Amino acid sequence: MIGRFSILVAAAALSASFSLTAYSQARPETLVKQRQGAMALQAKYFYPIRAMAQGKAPYDPNIVARNIGYLDALARMPWDGFTPATRDVKTGATPAVFSEPAKYKEAQDRFQAEVTTLAELARKGGGEPAIKSQIMAVDKSCGSCHDTFRERQ
Amino acid sequence: MIGRFSILVAAAALSASFSLTAYSQARPETLVKQRQGAMALQAKYFYPIRAMAQGKAPYDPNIVARNIGYLDALARMPWDGFTPATRDVKTGATPAVFSEPAKYKEAQDRFQAEVTTLAELARKGGGEPAIKSQIMAVDKSCGSCHDTFRERQ
Repeated sequence: MIGRFSILVAAAALSASFSLTAYSQARPETLVKQRQGAMALQAKYFYPIRAMAQGKAPYDPNIVARNIGYLDALARMPWDGFTPATRDVKTGATPAVFSEPAKYKEAQDRFQAEVTTLAELARKGGGEPAIKSQIMAVDKSCGSCHDTFRERQ
Repeated sequence: MIGRFSILVAAAALSASFSLTAYSQARPETLVKQRQGAMALQAKYFYPIRAMAQGKAPYDPNIVARNIGYLDALARMPWDGFTPATRDVKTGATPAVFSEPAKYKEAQDRFQAEVTTLAELARKGGGEPAIKSQIMAVDKSCGSCHDTFRERQ
């Protein structure tokens, strides 16, 4: 007889195996293209607001709000593309991405947390100084992850 | 003497010229990489939910909600990358992208409107049949744009 718990476990396993199937069907080159796409778009929407936070460009609250909304989504997108199957594709990822997954996960989480804080600040109508300061906190988390997990460019 | 209107116009011009500067500073290859990244990510998050809408994969409301949220942002990202400066970069864009900009804009708007409808449906907790049907409406708008504006693959 199948108990309720077994059904739940089976449902979760089915759901997980679907996810795994969905990922494993993607070729390593596709995973790399997608994760590089997410990084390229993070750059597209982050650099202009970082320039504003640094006083190098005039602060435009509309662009800031829009870009932060995009970054909130983009910050979640690259990570499942760093599967072991992509290890041998030539990219800017350092070997540490694959040899130190726990440390890499920690750096991803730190970045995502900083972006989430920025997005919440923007949603709550946080003032320009607070938003600028949090943009620079996001920048720091980009840099500290790149130090270890991206080849020098 | 500078009137209030002139100051407003100057501010708007400054703001517009900043935007233009931000785009024109990006090399054509960078614009292409960014817009292709947005398309690759649309595929990453759309294909799994289309498979669900078609009954080819089990319907997972969590994945559907998450992916629709991502697509709502991604649907807005590629278009400003199709500048005339990118005309000579080898890509899958047809010449019509540059020779028929009004028609291309119309196809973009139709796609974005379908995605917006899908995102609103998901936010309002629309039922599975309605969501599946709107996913297929989005799919149709992808296809009809690709028919004219993307080279056959």
